[in-house]
Amino acid sequence: MLTMNECIQALRSHAHFFILTHVRPDGDTLCSAAALCSALRRAGKQAVMFPNPGVTESYQPLVAPYLGAFNPGDYVLSVDVADLSMLPEEWEGTVDLAIDHHPANPGYAAATFLDGSKASCGEIVMQLILGLCGDLSKAEANLLYVAVSTDSGCFCYGNTTAETLRAAAQLIDCGAENAPLNKQFFRSYSFARLKLESMIYGELQSFRDHRINLAVVTREMMEASGATEDDCDDLASLPGRVRGNVVGITIRELAEDQCKVSLRTNDQVDSAAICARFGGGGHKMAAGCTLNTAPDIAALLILSVVNDIWPE
Amino acid sequence: MLTMNECIQALRSHAHFFILTHVRPDGDTLCSAAALCSALRRAGKQAVMFPNPGVTESYQPLVAPYLGAFNPGDYVLSVDVADLSMLPEEWEGTVDLAIDHHPANPGYAAATFLDGSKASCGEIVMQLILGLCGDLSKAEANLLYVAVSTDSGCFCYGNTTAETLRAAAQLIDCGAENAPLNKQFFRSYSFARLKLESMIYGELQSFRDHRINLAVVTREMMEASGATEDDCDDLASLPGRVRGNVVGITIRELAEDQCKVSLRTNDQVDSAAICARFGGGGHKMAAGCTLNTAPDIAALLILSVVNDIWPE
Repeated sequence: MLTMNECIQALRSHAHFFILTHVRPDGDTLCSAAALCSALRRAGKQAVMFPNPGVTESYQPLVAPYLGAFNPGDYVLSVDVADLSMLPEEWEGTVDLAIDHHPANPGYAAATFLDGSKASCGEIVMQLILGLCGDLSKAEANLLYVAVSTDSGCFCYGNTTAETLRAAAQLIDCGAENAPLNKQFFRSYSFARLKLESMIYGELQSFRDHRINLAVVTREMMEASGATEDDCDDLASLPGRVRGNVVGITIRELAEDQCKVSLRTNDQVDSAAICARFGGGGHKMAAGCTLNTAPDIAALLILSVVNDIWPE
Repeated sequence: MLTMNECIQALRSHAHFFILTHVRPDGDTLCSAAALCSALRRAGKQAVMFPNPGVTESYQPLVAPYLGAFNPGDYVLSVDVADLSMLPEEWEGTVDLAIDHHPANPGYAAATFLDGSKASCGEIVMQLILGLCGDLSKAEANLLYVAVSTDSGCFCYGNTTAETLRAAAQLIDCGAENAPLNKQFFRSYSFARLKLESMIYGELQSFRDHRINLAVVTREMMEASGATEDDCDDLASLPGRVRGNVVGITIRELAEDQCKVSLRTNDQVDSAAICARFGGGGHKMAAGCTLNTAPDIAALLILSVVNDIWPE
C-alpha cells in the first residue's frame, strides 16, 4: 500500500499512462480519471483514458478529450476500480497502480493507493493533482466537482462528511461551476424518465404503514414512456423515497416471465438474506435476485419472504 | 446598518428577547431563529420565538422547545424577514433588530444586520452565535444545518457558494447530523405527494422541443392523491425538471373557474412580463397570476402569451 507521496512519485517517474475506469462507469470513476489524465498532460506526460464502452450520454462530452488507445509499455492506472471483477472485460492486461477509495479493495494491482475514508475517488485525485502540479486547472476542478458531487448525491447521501464539503468548496475556489453542473446532473431529467417515474409511482404499492413499498417496472411502461436504458438509472431507489420506508422493492420485467428484483433496506432488515431465498445476493442494505415469473407473481413471492424474515 | 460586532453588542446588551419569523415559514427562518434563541438562553438571556401559525409538521418538533409569548419590554428580533409584508399579520408591534440575508431588505427595523452575500440566514446566525457564545451547541449545529441546507436545496441550488459548503462543514464538525437530516428533508416524501407528482407528470405537456413545459394540478388530483397543503411545497418547480426546460408553467385549480398560475423561467424569458398581461407580477425568473377560468383555458391563455413574448 503506497502513501500519498509514494503515489505522487510513481506518477512522476513514468512518462506514458493508460487510465482504466470501472464497468457501468459513473461520474466518480470517469471524471476522476479524466481530471488525472488532464493533470498528467499538464505535467508533461502522455496520458489517455480507456474508451469505456459503458459511458452514457451525460458523461460523453466530459471524457471525450481524454480517450485513447493503449500502447505497449504504458503505465496502467485504475481509478475507482474496487476489484478485478469491476474492470471492463475489454481490458485483458494487468494494472500497475490502483487509485481507489473502496475499503474492500483486495490489492489486485502491483501497487495501490487507497483512502477508504473518502466519499469519492475525486477527493483523492484532487490531492494527487495538487501534489503533482501544485494547482488545479478550471477543467480539472469542473471534472472533480462532478466526481465528488455525483458520488455523494450532491452532498445528500450518508457518505458525505465535512471533508467532502470542504473538498467541494476548494474545487469551487479553483473555478468549478457548481450551479450549472448541479442543474445538469441533479435537477434535470429526460421527459421519458419523468413519464416513466409517473407510471411507476402511479402503481406504487405500500404495505405495513408505508414501511414496505413495492414498485413494478413493466416492459409496457418502458414502451409507453419511451424510456431507454439511459433513463433507468437508480430505479431501485424509487420506493425508498416514501417517508417511513424500511424495505423498498423494485421489480423490473426484463422479458416474459423474467423479472429482476432489487431490494433496498435500512439496517433493520437484511436484503441479502431475503434475496438468498431466491438464489440472489448482495449486501445487507442492497441486494438483488432474478425470478422467472410474471411481475405480479414475483411481487407476491418477495413480499411473502419479506414478511417471513421481518415479521410485524 | 449594523456591523457584525455591533449586532453582537446589541444582543449582549439586552436581557429579554422575542424572535419573529416570516409568513409561510421555511427551514431557514425557523431553524435560524431557534438556534439563535438557544444561544441567547445559553448566554443567560430569556428568549422565545413567536409561535408562527404557519409552521408545518416537519419543523414543529425542531422549534417546539423555543416557542413562547411576547412580554412587554422584550427586545424584538426578526430573522430572515425581508420586508414588513413578510411579517405574520398576528404581529402588530415594531421590530428592534432585523437579522437578514435578503439584499432588498428596506430597513424596516430600528436596526438591521444584513449580509446579502449569504445563501441562507443560517450562515449569518452561525457567525453571531460564535461571536456571542464562542461555540455552537450540538442542537444549534443541527438547527443551523437544516437552515443552511434547506435554503440551498441541499447545496444544489445556484445560490450555493464555497462559503456555504464551508459553513455546513463547520456545522458537521460541531455535531450536526447531516445524514439523517438530509434523509428527512431531501430524500423522503409523503405517499400522497408521490401519488400527486405521479398524476402531475402523467399529464405534463411539453412544447417546442421541451423548452416549454406545463403542469396542471386539478382539485380532482388533490382529492384522488389524498394530498393536503403540506404536500404541495414547491409544485411550481416540477415542470422545470424537464431537461432543456426554459419556461415552466404550473396551473393550480383553486376553485371552479379559478386558477393560480406560477411561472419559472431561466434568464432568457421574463416571467413577470408574461404574468403582468394577466394582472400578476413577480420577478424575472419567478412570477405568478390568477386567472378566473378553468385550467385548460388558463393553459391556452398563458401559452399564447408565452409564445407572443418569446417567439420561436
